[in-house]
Amino acid sequence: MINETWRLIARPVGLFKDSDFEWREEAVPSLGEGDVLVRTIYISLDPTNRIWATQVSYMPVIPLGEVMRGGAVGVVEDSRHHGFQKGDIVQGMLGWQRYAVSSGSTLSKLPRGTPLIPFFGVLGHIGLTAYFGLLDIGKRKEGETLVVSAAAGAVGSLVGQIGKIKGCYVAGIAGSEDKCRWIRDELGFDVAINYRKEDVYPALQAACPRGIDIYFDNVGGEILDAALALMNLRGRIPLCGMISQYTATGPVAGPANLARLIMTRSRMEGFLVTDYLPRAGEAIPELLRWLQEGRLKFRTDVVNGLEHAPRAINRLFDGTNMGKLIVKVSEEP
Amino acid sequence: MINETWRLIARPVGLFKDSDFEWREEAVPSLGEGDVLVRTIYISLDPTNRIWATQVSYMPVIPLGEVMRGGAVGVVEDSRHHGFQKGDIVQGMLGWQRYAVSSGSTLSKLPRGTPLIPFFGVLGHIGLTAYFGLLDIGKRKEGETLVVSAAAGAVGSLVGQIGKIKGCYVAGIAGSEDKCRWIRDELGFDVAINYRKEDVYPALQAACPRGIDIYFDNVGGEILDAALALMNLRGRIPLCGMISQYTATGPVAGPANLARLIMTRSRMEGFLVTDYLPRAGEAIPELLRWLQEGRLKFRTDVVNGLEHAPRAINRLFDGTNMGKLIVKVSEEP
Repeated sequence: MINETWRLIARPVGLFKDSDFEWREEAVPSLGEGDVLVRTIYISLDPTNRIWATQVSYMPVIPLGEVMRGGAVGVVEDSRHHGFQKGDIVQGMLGWQRYAVSSGSTLSKLPRGTPLIPFFGVLGHIGLTAYFGLLDIGKRKEGETLVVSAAAGAVGSLVGQIGKIKGCYVAGIAGSEDKCRWIRDELGFDVAINYRKEDVYPALQAACPRGIDIYFDNVGGEILDAALALMNLRGRIPLCGMISQYTATGPVAGPANLARLIMTRSRMEGFLVTDYLPRAGEAIPELLRWLQEGRLKFRTDVVNGLEHAPRAINRLFDGTNMGKLIVKVSEEP
Repeated sequence: MINETWRLIARPVGLFKDSDFEWREEAVPSLGEGDVLVRTIYISLDPTNRIWATQVSYMPVIPLGEVMRGGAVGVVEDSRHHGFQKGDIVQGMLGWQRYAVSSGSTLSKLPRGTPLIPFFGVLGHIGLTAYFGLLDIGKRKEGETLVVSAAAGAVGSLVGQIGKIKGCYVAGIAGSEDKCRWIRDELGFDVAINYRKEDVYPALQAACPRGIDIYFDNVGGEILDAALALMNLRGRIPLCGMISQYTATGPVAGPANLARLIMTRSRMEGFLVTDYLPRAGEAIPELLRWLQEGRLKFRTDVVNGLEHAPRAINRLFDGTNMGKLIVKVSEEP
């Protein structure tokens, strides 16, 4: 059986380039004891993938020559692990390839009937990131003002909606009129700011007449600076990502307004969804209910074909992505 | 009776200049109902004074032409307030002047026999800042690595000593060999780094082989950046001050390493001692005991004469101050 893989062969500088990857067709390795053969169905493309490609972070850097790392779901085609059998739907770090041979210990089974697209959109790592980032790190209180950046992104769009469900006044910052319209008119954000058209600081100031209690940061950079300047007493800034900086080609300046954290006794705190996986059971039933009640909407940006992954991932950084970005590699069973 | 006052007449740019202040001799106003006449004994000079002179912060900016704001202790000379009588020792925002007429409601009495110099050094706002900043915001745990900047300053020198008492491994960063010797040889810090002689990042890396769990930040800027790069999982960064930036004449770049907060799930949190005044009773007995047991040492940098205040305050920013900086205006009764 022939596998198709994208291997990372160079460290990206700025956006990913075609020459950072190599397409290889090669035999699928045979299974060792405890291994599982998985056919990839969907690969999740996430901003953090860019970090993995260049830096030691919360995970090792991806070694050059290896299959590009990526979270994915797939279907078991063959198994030498007692916990898995043909036909099981599994998730794990399958990588950018058509077939993955994984140790069963690194895979987890999804319950039968899990709808796979919503799994990436709301009920998986994206939904948990938004849920725990806002409620556990952000500690939102009824009536507070919540600002979220990358608000039309997979995480941001959920953060704003959960904020509304939980009684916050919500302002979203996004990079196009289309995105702003979507979050305001369809997702119910109170206000949307197009940072490519408006000066963020005055726009935020006008949008948040009572200041900012929670700034859910997905981008870092200038928008973080503007938000800092408007923080209220005992504000919270969950740091979810710094997408504006992942493709920077030199050192990035941090926020000039950091001293504002002192004046307002505010807190800035980084978090990773991986820490919350053991608590998924607190979030999933609520997220599922909101989804079924139509109170949580999401959009998926599905790219058809593994061959398009290297270019598609740049959509996360060039502003063209809206909603959860996924590569479809093969058909759902 | 003639008063002597330093009035702020210009917004400082960079360090304070003589021309930012005006010395005025003028009649002491007569007392209204509820007023108290206080003779100033000691004025506390603190980095935050520089903020008050130029910015709206956690306090209003000092209006030009007003007496320079400053915390002080003094002795009551006359009173039309039922809560105070001649001879009482009081503290309050008496300002940079020989006599202050204050509403009694803005003053608080010190218990008879309070030693006034230690009051500024350990048992007042400085000690509370160090105590609550390290223990409440920093949440230190036995065996953790604590790094403190401006480590020979009033707050920093106490933070390091409390860290040692509480079982931390402590590295201090200061700006001269003298200061480094003092904190290492007399105060018991495990290691001292002279940031004017050594590259901070490699020096910190060598000094903290197990990484940094708590970085108590008094300075901001490059040292904050270096510390961020070495934070351990779930690190805490109490932000007490950003003294490196208070005299900046242009926008200051924030830390480039802020994304490290995400990777390590660390927290950066601003605080002000004013919020902890209601909890002073938790800290003072412990601080007093450590002081009496000789486990907390402090140094006071006393400047004699109100006339020297405008130049003396720059010692906080030019690296020449060691220990708590105080202006002595008149004799203790």
